[in-house]
Amino acid sequence: MLGVCYYPEHWSESWWEEDAARMRSLGITHVRIGEFAWSRIEPEPGRFEWGWLDRAMDVLAGAGLKIVLGTPTATPPKWLIDRHPDILPVDEKDQVRGFGSRRHYSFSAPAWIQESRRIVEAVARRYGEHPGLAGWQTDNEYGCHDTILSWGQHDLAAFKQWLRRRYQTPQALNEAWGNVFWSMELRSFDEAFLPNLSVTETNPAARLDFWRFSSEQVAAYNRMQVEILRAHSPGRFITHNFMGLFHDFDHWDVGDDLDFATWDSYPIGFTERFPFSEEEKIRYARTAHPDMAAFHHDLYRGVGRGRWWVMEQQPGPVNWAPWNPIPRKGQIRLFTWEALAHGAEVVSYFRWRQAPFAQEQNHAGLNLPDRTLSPGGEEAAQVGRELKALGSLPDGGQAPVALVFDYEASWITRIQPQGQDFDYAEMTYRWYEAVRRLGLDVDIVRPGASLKGYRLVLAPTLPYVSDAAHAAFRDAEGFILFGPRTGSRTRTFAIPDNLAPGPLADLIPIKVIQVSSLRPGLQEPLTGTVQGTATRWREDVEAGARVQVHARFEDGCPALMSADSKAYLAGWLEGQGLRDLMAWCLDRSGLEGMQLPEDIRLRRRGALTFAFNYGNSTWDVAASLGKVVIGSRELKPGDVTILAT
Amino acid sequence: MLGVCYYPEHWSESWWEEDAARMRSLGITHVRIGEFAWSRIEPEPGRFEWGWLDRAMDVLAGAGLKIVLGTPTATPPKWLIDRHPDILPVDEKDQVRGFGSRRHYSFSAPAWIQESRRIVEAVARRYGEHPGLAGWQTDNEYGCHDTILSWGQHDLAAFKQWLRRRYQTPQALNEAWGNVFWSMELRSFDEAFLPNLSVTETNPAARLDFWRFSSEQVAAYNRMQVEILRAHSPGRFITHNFMGLFHDFDHWDVGDDLDFATWDSYPIGFTERFPFSEEEKIRYARTAHPDMAAFHHDLYRGVGRGRWWVMEQQPGPVNWAPWNPIPRKGQIRLFTWEALAHGAEVVSYFRWRQAPFAQEQNHAGLNLPDRTLSPGGEEAAQVGRELKALGSLPDGGQAPVALVFDYEASWITRIQPQGQDFDYAEMTYRWYEAVRRLGLDVDIVRPGASLKGYRLVLAPTLPYVSDAAHAAFRDAEGFILFGPRTGSRTRTFAIPDNLAPGPLADLIPIKVIQVSSLRPGLQEPLTGTVQGTATRWREDVEAGARVQVHARFEDGCPALMSADSKAYLAGWLEGQGLRDLMAWCLDRSGLEGMQLPEDIRLRRRGALTFAFNYGNSTWDVAASLGKVVIGSRELKPGDVTILAT
Amino acid sequence: MLGVCYYPEHWSESWWEEDAARMRSLGITHVRIGEFAWSRIEPEPGRFEWGWLDRAMDVLAGAGLKIVLGTPTATPPKWLIDRHPDILPVDEKDQVRGFGSRRHYSFSAPAWIQESRRIVEAVARRYGEHPGLAGWQTDNEYGCHDTILSWGQHDLAAFKQWLRRRYQTPQALNEAWGNVFWSMELRSFDEAFLPNLSVTETNPAARLDFWRFSSEQVAAYNRMQVEILRAHSPGRFITHNFMGLFHDFDHWDVGDDLDFATWDSYPIGFTERFPFSEEEKIRYARTAHPDMAAFHHDLYRGVGRGRWWVMEQQPGPVNWAPWNPIPRKGQIRLFTWEALAHGAEVVSYFRWRQAPFAQEQNHAGLNLPDRTLSPGGEEAAQVGRELKALGSLPDGGQAPVALVFDYEASWITRIQPQGQDFDYAEMTYRWYEAVRRLGLDVDIVRPGASLKGYRLVLAPTLPYVSDAAHAAFRDAEGFILFGPRTGSRTRTFAIPDNLAPGPLADLIPIKVIQVSSLRPGLQEPLTGTVQGTATRWREDVEAGARVQVHARFEDGCPALMSADSKAYLAGWLEGQGLRDLMAWCLDRSGLEGMQLPEDIRLRRRGALTFAFNYGNSTWDVAASLGKVVIGSRELKPGDVTILAT
Repeated sequence: MLGVCYYPEHWSESWWEEDAARMRSLGITHVRIGEFAWSRIEPEPGRFEWGWLDRAMDVLAGAGLKIVLGTPTATPPKWLIDRHPDILPVDEKDQVRGFGSRRHYSFSAPAWIQESRRIVEAVARRYGEHPGLAGWQTDNEYGCHDTILSWGQHDLAAFKQWLRRRYQTPQALNEAWGNVFWSMELRSFDEAFLPNLSVTETNPAARLDFWRFSSEQVAAYNRMQVEILRAHSPGRFITHNFMGLFHDFDHWDVGDDLDFATWDSYPIGFTERFPFSEEEKIRYARTAHPDMAAFHHDLYRGVGRGRWWVMEQQPGPVNWAPWNPIPRKGQIRLFTWEALAHGAEVVSYFRWRQAPFAQEQNHAGLNLPDRTLSPGGEEAAQVGRELKALGSLPDGGQAPVALVFDYEASWITRIQPQGQDFDYAEMTYRWYEAVRRLGLDVDIVRPGASLKGYRLVLAPTLPYVSDAAHAAFRDAEGFILFGPRTGSRTRTFAIPDNLAPGPLADLIPIKVIQVSSLRPGLQEPLTGTVQGTATRWREDVEAGARVQVHARFEDGCPALMSADSKAYLAGWLEGQGLRDLMAWCLDRSGLEGMQLPEDIRLRRRGALTFAFNYGNSTWDVAASLGKVVIGSRELKPGDVTILAT
Repeated sequence: MLGVCYYPEHWSESWWEEDAARMRSLGITHVRIGEFAWSRIEPEPGRFEWGWLDRAMDVLAGAGLKIVLGTPTATPPKWLIDRHPDILPVDEKDQVRGFGSRRHYSFSAPAWIQESRRIVEAVARRYGEHPGLAGWQTDNEYGCHDTILSWGQHDLAAFKQWLRRRYQTPQALNEAWGNVFWSMELRSFDEAFLPNLSVTETNPAARLDFWRFSSEQVAAYNRMQVEILRAHSPGRFITHNFMGLFHDFDHWDVGDDLDFATWDSYPIGFTERFPFSEEEKIRYARTAHPDMAAFHHDLYRGVGRGRWWVMEQQPGPVNWAPWNPIPRKGQIRLFTWEALAHGAEVVSYFRWRQAPFAQEQNHAGLNLPDRTLSPGGEEAAQVGRELKALGSLPDGGQAPVALVFDYEASWITRIQPQGQDFDYAEMTYRWYEAVRRLGLDVDIVRPGASLKGYRLVLAPTLPYVSDAAHAAFRDAEGFILFGPRTGSRTRTFAIPDNLAPGPLADLIPIKVIQVSSLRPGLQEPLTGTVQGTATRWREDVEAGARVQVHARFEDGCPALMSADSKAYLAGWLEGQGLRDLMAWCLDRSGLEGMQLPEDIRLRRRGALTFAFNYGNSTWDVAASLGKVVIGSRELKPGDVTILAT
Repeated sequence: MLGVCYYPEHWSESWWEEDAARMRSLGITHVRIGEFAWSRIEPEPGRFEWGWLDRAMDVLAGAGLKIVLGTPTATPPKWLIDRHPDILPVDEKDQVRGFGSRRHYSFSAPAWIQESRRIVEAVARRYGEHPGLAGWQTDNEYGCHDTILSWGQHDLAAFKQWLRRRYQTPQALNEAWGNVFWSMELRSFDEAFLPNLSVTETNPAARLDFWRFSSEQVAAYNRMQVEILRAHSPGRFITHNFMGLFHDFDHWDVGDDLDFATWDSYPIGFTERFPFSEEEKIRYARTAHPDMAAFHHDLYRGVGRGRWWVMEQQPGPVNWAPWNPIPRKGQIRLFTWEALAHGAEVVSYFRWRQAPFAQEQNHAGLNLPDRTLSPGGEEAAQVGRELKALGSLPDGGQAPVALVFDYEASWITRIQPQGQDFDYAEMTYRWYEAVRRLGLDVDIVRPGASLKGYRLVLAPTLPYVSDAAHAAFRDAEGFILFGPRTGSRTRTFAIPDNLAPGPLADLIPIKVIQVSSLRPGLQEPLTGTVQGTATRWREDVEAGARVQVHARFEDGCPALMSADSKAYLAGWLEGQGLRDLMAWCLDRSGLEGMQLPEDIRLRRRGALTFAFNYGNSTWDVAASLGKVVIGSRELKPGDVTILAT
């Protein structure tokens, strides 16, 4: 199904009817509204103006559209900030982040919690049972513009409480953090401080705890909204629109409180921002990198426990990347079908019409700033027609491959990279890319989630292996590949007593003696079953007797080793070496892949197979993939072929 | 004529007589003094020490020098700042910018306005009718060191007043800025805030208005000084010394209140700072890029409504660029003649003698720190002799080509670049260079100024086309080429209802549907009458029926098009493609150019033609350019040939 | 002798005995403890816990180890900072630098001086005459994390006093600094201000004085500790552990108050941080650049007036550089022998055991985080055995070459680089490298120290030549080469009246007319006796009649010139040109060198010659160097050969 994001408050009321009718004619079924409208809903403290929104909802519902209503907490109005300036977040350099854009609040400010409760309850009471209301979106893009970590007085006060709950005594905290080092010991929780503004780096255990605390504050804030909405809006779903390339809070936790996950898919802007090579950035500037959208689809399917939407789909050029090219012709349609192929229930475009004013005026919509379809709008209309022709889509099932994704792994490696280019997002993405190039579907899973049913499990790195994660690995049925640094830290950011891989040593008896981070230009070739060259990172490993070594570094140290069905890679691999490694894993796990061309991707949904061409050459779709339902066996650049078996 | 900047307060009084005599012997007629001397003029609050300055003026005037006296407001002394610390400017990060260098004031601080009036009036009363006084320079280099935008309490207070005057009601302001977006609406002007320190980018309309306000504050401050000086110093000229590569306030506006414009010409330092390629920076490190001085000469001739000086001419290596090489031999002479060729009435060197102390001790003068001429001083002496031989120079006239230069265009594209390398200064400069390479003289004109008499008008970009600008384009007699983004924004920074080029659609009926900013490496080739490759920027244009398309992008979209004598270029061109485009424009406008070698430039002044060689090869000056008056028909590297027809 | 840094407070008391015994078995004789333990020594204000430290000292002494005790002032505990928050340093942007790491104090805060006296006296009284105590280390790494310059209220107050003492009257200060420039004149010392936060650059003379003041504050602070320790701990040595690549205070001054110098040698991390070419950084990533350790050994031998240790020797990968590779096998042994070859009395490894917690958990130790030797520990053990076999080492003597190293030269060129890449550290290092490549030993000496006995003296640059330095140059017996900018500034950061080289003009009668800083890509070839190409910097020099010119730039200006035994180089040379210049200097000074391969270095200590191989090829040690005592005549990559004559 298709959806769209709409801002009735931006347009003359006289346009609403026509807009709604045109949405329907494009095949759009869902419309999201309201998430930035606080100043119109409550223009003065306590004075609510419901009339315009009542009318807007009625017009949309009247046209047969299902409404997703956003709580307007991402944009508290000026009068609220003037009354409670202590709500404003504070950056790591101790600068207050002011009014004038959005997300200007700290999750820990008491007045903010209270004001949020008030406005969410007001909106929920007003519209909770509106017949056109399908469900709710809480707030908007938690964390956007680097707003998870705030460093002000309320953040410190709440962090002190959190520490007290977690550690009970200052002695326990001192012990856990190793505060004896550099005389950082605290005599009481009142002496606790935020890990910023120090002369040199602060204690990494403190920084990890502050990140965990901050992530939990987001989950608590979201849960507060969810509880109010559930109370006043029975039977409606509740979701949140997460972002791409963003790991500052634990999305698995927030997802637990939602009915399903949604995310905002801007693959071309993300490609500009991701640490791709210059060559890749140029090559994929107008299409996005072929795994950019897919990776997130699979991630948020996991976060939504199988159910998810794209809440905002890029409809043309955007305004926020360093450069913002017009997408290649066909790309908006391709993105839409790709989301559906990965299991999206709804793909909702952002936005109905390009705004001619304010911050996002260079962000395309399905319509130009006037009332004519944009090029992206034309492509959406085509999908609408194709969807109608195709009928309802079958359910997808469990994929053969699981990739373990962990937000704490991102925090730990950012707090302590040890080598400047050790990037968790990049590493995870490259592993995903390598296995997807072999034509396999992937589920992205939470550490500790059951791994049963997966033939292959990839854990690019997981520095802290919790008891739950350990148990899931132990009980897994397939082949598991662990990447470097896995098991290298305890829960309190210390080196395990038995050294890395810590608790996993009972699954694969090895010991990491030393680690080496490698500046660009330093290379550590591997020889053995898998060839390739480690860059960025390698480890010196001592392998126990029952460990089989499959590849070694030039100095003889084990590079790839396994014990039974558990393997460990002691370095950073990319490119062909990484793809060869994945092929080896497939072999070990009894999976069959196919070598796809660099820019072709496949995805299955029940009996349907979808093929996508991100490249510049036509691909002849193999007969074995089924018979063509939409498109052509000659898959042209930018095109989609749908096949049925 | 030649001039020099002199600081009697830096030297033993016993040197003054000799210095003045030596100035005269070099052919110097004008001397600028006083602009940084506040602490010597008023060493304690209210206690004035006129004696030394009286004597200095008498010595200089006695030697026959005409004096330009600067008001000393660029350097308020420590006692003044200690009394009124709220005068200090505040940077965008909310940091007060302190005492210790210069320009440490906000244009909006009431105490500063009052203190400025007091000192200007005191100096004007004392010397306004001094027989040696030729005229005044107000302050010094407004905006130097990024001092136009200040973000403190007085700036906010004045901005609120400005908004109130401009918009009358908060509703009008909310409407104009599109504040409904992200709930940024204001209930009163008291709620207004400065567009800094927000979580993410602020409203571009707010930023543009703050820039306009800041620019108007400069003009008002300058006007205040001008009025005092006019009252006390009848018959003397008033000017200000503007800078190169600086667009933070509207120089056209400030120029309106002056008798003529002057500027400070440091072409070698500017070449180091300008976004040239590395190759160009190396190639021109010791000569400056061939259009660097000329571009500014033509700009400030415009700002001065035909009358202008170089107030500070680089006399050797400077101290403030990342690298400061010794100019190539002959270059100081070349710079001087080039300024005269473009119409300068006086070329005044900065400074008479290199200061051995304080911030600028590595800045050359006409003399070494002692009493001997520097290499640059020797070259100035040569110009003095040549000028004497040549006699008075004829007046220049209107050039055949006009280039429209707009300060708001600079602000708008900096506020919203959309592509990281869309640089207004660079674009304008490259268009100027391309047409100058064809041997043509150029006038740089203000948008809205009459374009009558010009055979060719270039508007590299003009995002906001005012009614006056529209009328001038409409009434122009020559051929006009508009660059991309022209007409793409309204006065309040919104997309026009009819899309770009907005009001110009009646002159050339096209419509810009989408814009694409292109990262380095992305290329959009043009085919048609003009070939070349767009980089950085392209647009998707729909052209009306009566529009003729001269070149297209590979996807068929129009790249260069015209209707009657108005043409539009839908992308960023540079290098050979841009030069070909200019040749095409010449052809269309019936102008005849000549293909000059890369490093040769010409400029006419009445019957005289000046040729300058910035390159490394000798150029044989064409006989058609006239008979040699100074120099040789073999124009050697670094040399000047003057011809008469 | 060997030593180690140990933190008994980090480990279970039950491990101490075994640790001490294992130290002894490795051949370790010295152990440093205590320097970060304030929060354990005085857990609450005024409550001292001596028990644990008493026991630790007794265990270590009982095992026969000689103890170096650090005063714990580098890490004031939280309770102290909460009581005296004004102790915290302030950065140049006016941001207070908070608690949470180390060195969080201003050297000028009165409360800090008082608290420091109190804790140093307490520790000195307690352990000053402990039988195991060999000596003291004051504080730890003064200046680490950029902590010499602090910009707070106490710093300003102390700076005002310092200015008053130095200049007596504000008029004298105004005159010395050239404050008339830009009206910066002060009416009283109360008006003085710190040279930060200004609109543009502050007065360089003020900045130099503030740096001198800050350096003197360090020396005074250290002297305060030294006096207390001397009073309570007769007969024990006092030292401080200086850092590598760090010039923010005058180490010669602090060294004057110590019994000998020590430094912390992390050659691989320093190689990553030094401005080497990318190619060099890759080539030497795992070995360090061959002169990195040696340069500092020679420097600190000078600072210690002939006596010095390595207090912290890198034992494996570290944690603080952008990348931290595992050292090449053998490198820890090589570093240890190299320090001994240059005259170290003790080489003390940092640290005994890798800490599993807090900020430095990725920093290797001689032991893994458990109780087994690390790879570096194994190499230390080998040195221990070799040392035992070799017996006591002979004394070294004066080297044939002196290199003049000046901290003020570093400050002056950083305050006023004039060319962005004029880097004093780099220049000095490259001169050292070039002469070391010729096989010569070098002493690094203080300007003004006697130069008698040296055959060759190198002064890469010395902008301010004091009377003492001038006298030493005048009285030197060998050949002297001065580099560019020497003598170009007075004591108060002004250009000398006679221009550069100022006072040296009586030794070599030349005059620097202009200086040119050259961006990368600009080259100034030399022709003459010495060939090569100047980059970064060149000067236009007028040479007096009795000056002999050995090489010229292409425009004929002298590039290398001499008068009697004093030579002057008017540009920046590097690479082969610089090595040729050094060979020419050897020739002029009658020294004989040998052309060593790029990665081989020699060093003599009495009758012993040590050869080190930093490269990848075996070197056949020349028979002339003596007979092999340790190692082999085939000097393999990473190996050491010791020869005796």
